[in-house]
Amino acid sequence: MTTMRAAVVHSFTEPLRIDERPLPVPGPHEALVRVEYTGVCHTDLHAARGDWPVKPALPFVPGHEGVGIVVAVGEEVSRVRVGDHVGNAWLASACGDCEYCESGWETLCPAQKNSGYSVDGSFGDHMLVDARYCPIIPEGVDLASVAPVLCAGVTVYKGLKVTDTKPGQWVLVSGIGGLGHMAAQYAVAMGLRVVAIDVDEAKLALARKHGAEVTVNANEADAVGEISRVTGGGVHGALVTAVNGKAFPQAVAGLRRGGTVSLVGLPPESFPLDIFTTVLFGLTVRGSIVGTRRDMAEAIDFFARGLVRPTISVRPLEDVNEVFGEMERGAIDGRVVLRTS
Amino acid sequence: MTTMRAAVVHSFTEPLRIDERPLPVPGPHEALVRVEYTGVCHTDLHAARGDWPVKPALPFVPGHEGVGIVVAVGEEVSRVRVGDHVGNAWLASACGDCEYCESGWETLCPAQKNSGYSVDGSFGDHMLVDARYCPIIPEGVDLASVAPVLCAGVTVYKGLKVTDTKPGQWVLVSGIGGLGHMAAQYAVAMGLRVVAIDVDEAKLALARKHGAEVTVNANEADAVGEISRVTGGGVHGALVTAVNGKAFPQAVAGLRRGGTVSLVGLPPESFPLDIFTTVLFGLTVRGSIVGTRRDMAEAIDFFARGLVRPTISVRPLEDVNEVFGEMERGAIDGRVVLRTS
Amino acid sequence: MTTMRAAVVHSFTEPLRIDERPLPVPGPHEALVRVEYTGVCHTDLHAARGDWPVKPALPFVPGHEGVGIVVAVGEEVSRVRVGDHVGNAWLASACGDCEYCESGWETLCPAQKNSGYSVDGSFGDHMLVDARYCPIIPEGVDLASVAPVLCAGVTVYKGLKVTDTKPGQWVLVSGIGGLGHMAAQYAVAMGLRVVAIDVDEAKLALARKHGAEVTVNANEADAVGEISRVTGGGVHGALVTAVNGKAFPQAVAGLRRGGTVSLVGLPPESFPLDIFTTVLFGLTVRGSIVGTRRDMAEAIDFFARGLVRPTISVRPLEDVNEVFGEMERGAIDGRVVLRTS
Amino acid sequence: MTTMRAAVVHSFTEPLRIDERPLPVPGPHEALVRVEYTGVCHTDLHAARGDWPVKPALPFVPGHEGVGIVVAVGEEVSRVRVGDHVGNAWLASACGDCEYCESGWETLCPAQKNSGYSVDGSFGDHMLVDARYCPIIPEGVDLASVAPVLCAGVTVYKGLKVTDTKPGQWVLVSGIGGLGHMAAQYAVAMGLRVVAIDVDEAKLALARKHGAEVTVNANEADAVGEISRVTGGGVHGALVTAVNGKAFPQAVAGLRRGGTVSLVGLPPESFPLDIFTTVLFGLTVRGSIVGTRRDMAEAIDFFARGLVRPTISVRPLEDVNEVFGEMERGAIDGRVVLRTS
Repeated sequence: MTTMRAAVVHSFTEPLRIDERPLPVPGPHEALVRVEYTGVCHTDLHAARGDWPVKPALPFVPGHEGVGIVVAVGEEVSRVRVGDHVGNAWLASACGDCEYCESGWETLCPAQKNSGYSVDGSFGDHMLVDARYCPIIPEGVDLASVAPVLCAGVTVYKGLKVTDTKPGQWVLVSGIGGLGHMAAQYAVAMGLRVVAIDVDEAKLALARKHGAEVTVNANEADAVGEISRVTGGGVHGALVTAVNGKAFPQAVAGLRRGGTVSLVGLPPESFPLDIFTTVLFGLTVRGSIVGTRRDMAEAIDFFARGLVRPTISVRPLEDVNEVFGEMERGAIDGRVVLRTS
Repeated sequence: MTTMRAAVVHSFTEPLRIDERPLPVPGPHEALVRVEYTGVCHTDLHAARGDWPVKPALPFVPGHEGVGIVVAVGEEVSRVRVGDHVGNAWLASACGDCEYCESGWETLCPAQKNSGYSVDGSFGDHMLVDARYCPIIPEGVDLASVAPVLCAGVTVYKGLKVTDTKPGQWVLVSGIGGLGHMAAQYAVAMGLRVVAIDVDEAKLALARKHGAEVTVNANEADAVGEISRVTGGGVHGALVTAVNGKAFPQAVAGLRRGGTVSLVGLPPESFPLDIFTTVLFGLTVRGSIVGTRRDMAEAIDFFARGLVRPTISVRPLEDVNEVFGEMERGAIDGRVVLRTS
Repeated sequence: MTTMRAAVVHSFTEPLRIDERPLPVPGPHEALVRVEYTGVCHTDLHAARGDWPVKPALPFVPGHEGVGIVVAVGEEVSRVRVGDHVGNAWLASACGDCEYCESGWETLCPAQKNSGYSVDGSFGDHMLVDARYCPIIPEGVDLASVAPVLCAGVTVYKGLKVTDTKPGQWVLVSGIGGLGHMAAQYAVAMGLRVVAIDVDEAKLALARKHGAEVTVNANEADAVGEISRVTGGGVHGALVTAVNGKAFPQAVAGLRRGGTVSLVGLPPESFPLDIFTTVLFGLTVRGSIVGTRRDMAEAIDFFARGLVRPTISVRPLEDVNEVFGEMERGAIDGRVVLRTS
Repeated sequence: MTTMRAAVVHSFTEPLRIDERPLPVPGPHEALVRVEYTGVCHTDLHAARGDWPVKPALPFVPGHEGVGIVVAVGEEVSRVRVGDHVGNAWLASACGDCEYCESGWETLCPAQKNSGYSVDGSFGDHMLVDARYCPIIPEGVDLASVAPVLCAGVTVYKGLKVTDTKPGQWVLVSGIGGLGHMAAQYAVAMGLRVVAIDVDEAKLALARKHGAEVTVNANEADAVGEISRVTGGGVHGALVTAVNGKAFPQAVAGLRRGGTVSLVGLPPESFPLDIFTTVLFGLTVRGSIVGTRRDMAEAIDFFARGLVRPTISVRPLEDVNEVFGEMERGAIDGRVVLRTS
């Protein structure tokens, strides 16, 4: 086989096209992967639309939640072998020796490459990955279900970690969509007590199913007061996955004194931070972006042990443009996974 | 002696009055202190003007940087003795057994009392302190100079601590006024490398005198770029003592990836936080309020070892209204200390 | 009622005697508690035998896992009220303002008092507690079962915390007796993965029942190799509750590189620490003693939520000498709780 | 030039021989360095004598404190260029993607290579280094003086870091030899207060010159009591560089409650750890091995800023066997540096 099929962005204003293209040959540190499934992320949509200041070079293949089987490796590759199950991730590779790479923070590496953005991604039946950085999927793990872990899962897992909360403490998960419904499960697996907040009662019911002890409708007049009452003074940590202007101040207001809110979404706008409260109550606001290879291995391990189950809808690769449309209309529950082969 | 003199706020719209009033008798946990000097803080001004939502009950005596000599103690007092040098502090007392008090965060205790606000302060020749909480001043320490340590000093010292920076790393001190000129000295004593930023060249010169390696004028077109260049990518931590709307985003922009900015001022307004940068660069924004008894002992110890020297102007207690006026006009360099006896 | 009954140590070489004694009157900070149950700890046995260098002053009442109902309070008491359920603990009180008390480490306070050792304990139908320090038991919690949480529970919970392990990591619980069987449950509730090690297969079965994923018989020739294999390189943390000479080096040898072993038992002897391995593999060995009021509240909260269930045998107070004998012969499974009223 | 000169170990029982050998050609990730100076470490002596269980394969070139100038680089090298000043280090390279490498703990990588042990070292006029891992020496830094930083310096710097002490706290430096005299300087630069302990008054005088506030002769009857008195209860941290049997328990005994002792030497024996004290006082004992690339960059930066100055004696490479003999007899003060070119 010398060609592959992929969904390709040729223009920021037109639908993706399913192209036949030459099968790439792995460089010294790369592996060629036959992609079985790939999750679809809002970032893919932003990439395909050219929404952010630094746009991808056209044409390109989106996708950074791909999973499949290694079919060939470059000459210097020792971390994975042909036949291994691996994936790709937003962090395609990093330099390996800047101050961030050296200290376990490769996600902050200024020279990082990003899958489906600065390097071709997983929206195809094959992809190249940097074998030093690709997520490794243990034997026996369901490939369709694990796909969303590679971005959504690791993102919320790391976001929860950087709230610095400890088992037995309360954490607020704000927004129970594609990210939040996984966050609730990770939080429970981490020994945290979960308060879920959303405007949609069906999503709050899903959060309860996943172990949230308390759910609050964000449209309630006294949502913050309710959080404070049930948690005895507010949550120790909060993870904001919702990207609307109300979720951020509501999460900050729901914090206990000394609490931390972590942000993982990438809305373009600024949010107003109330300095008086932040100072007087010793609050912390912290941004968090995806996760390192170590975070990834941990996030996958929680999944492999059955503690986290994303809600997925499996669709053929050909549906990619319809899926993007549904995401834009907010018509998607959970995570979409494309069957690529 | 059965009476004392104090500067008393009788109305939020009138000058303080120097009153003769009965000398108070210490309760079981209290000490009566003959005040020698007291620092003057912007908070005293806010208190006297009733600027904040929860106002002090009239009449009251401001002041929370007082230092003096114990002249009488209550029956349960064991921590200090007659003749000891002690002070008061914004944190007059705390409950001792809430979750914050139990975990070394008494500054977040919801039941705390505050000197010169909810209990009478140090603007007089005597004051009562809770002997379980009052700062203890070692023998041989100059009382006039140490006064500003009790609020300004401990506040910036704690603010620097919560930036989570380590010796050898860069810290930005934003604003080289009454707080910032002490922050630069604490930072140097903590092994940090200091970048100072201010709009006033004289203050930047003062920062250099106190060990700042780099100074940047905030009005320069490329102030942030300059910070980034000299520090090789931005500062690891930043302490914002300035309370103008420009200082906060400038400090955030000056951070290295993964860096932390801590805020210690109490401006009433909100500041816009750029979420995209905060998330992508893994930034942390953290509020910090004064310091615990432990922070206080450490802050005083740095002073006692000669590593920190506030710039002070000593004035008689009777000048309190003039001093407030000068503070409102921004006509004060360093810290004002009132001679009270 | 003006008298109470208690089991009193009059001599380190004779059995305890059940005495009638005057009912004490609470001092300003104290509460008088009608004791319902009290756990029995090995420390009580050491106290009654005078095993340690600093012995208790005779006569005294042992016991530091007592639970009951407040029947009277001193005049300064605000933390508890008549009718509240409270307990006592090894940490009867601390000074409140040393460097340890000020920083959330009251368990290291040099001036601390210890229940059943330097102050009378819970082996009676009434006891005095310092109301600022006594454990508070939430409404609806079973008093007999919660008793062992007050020392055994909080001790292993804190010991696990100071291993610095994170949810999803492996922890070794060494010894599945009165302490270890609770440690396994706390570890699981904290999101940790448990390896249990003991010489007794019945105890290993109990550990599996409480959620241990792996159990290893310490007498196996290759016990350490087995730990390493199942955990992929060793455990991240280990808690040594066993006090025999083999358990300590075995736990250290079972650590992953960079791992931490915490010790909570108080055997009189020294253990040899292999420096070469400790240095080359960056290992940490850490002692941990009971827990602070905050740790206690957390430990009780895990219990109250049903996540921890000690195995108890309830016996009448009069059996205290028989129980001590059985403990000395190693004939006790789980924890003994005395009914005191 | 196609050959180089190096001091080579051909047998564990014979002196090193200065050999002419082919100049090696750098592999894809390697740099060829013209060595100017190399420090000599006790580890080199252990390597040359085959003292440790896993011995180096003969013949080999010792040395892991070499500094010089890059003269050629492999095809994949981007981190350094011809003309750059670099060094080698005990950590010659690591795998880059194990759990330790991924989390900023490459010094624990099981697949690491070690300079002068498993790969040829710096005792020659040229050496190969892995360009992804070699220490980088800033322009203008004196090469002879910086050599000892590459092992001794980074080792004590990291050892001090893992004591978890904070600026203003007390640290004990045990042994003021080749490691300890650098440790005192690093500690001072980190804002710590230094107590030095040794049996040699000349070394204690050197410690005072380098900023130790207190020195204690380890042979004094009450050395531990003295430490406790001057520090008000013991040191917060201790670094044991001495490898005699007395230094370890003395350092542990000198700790304040809650304190940490870190060990950086590699004596073959075990030391007895007193469990009772360790538990009751909440002590921590921690091993630490050299430092990561990040620690190295920091350690070099302190040197480059003039805050650390090792005492060195410069000798020609030909003296290597004499130097080893002097080290065995304890006749060396400070660090020896060989001139290699």
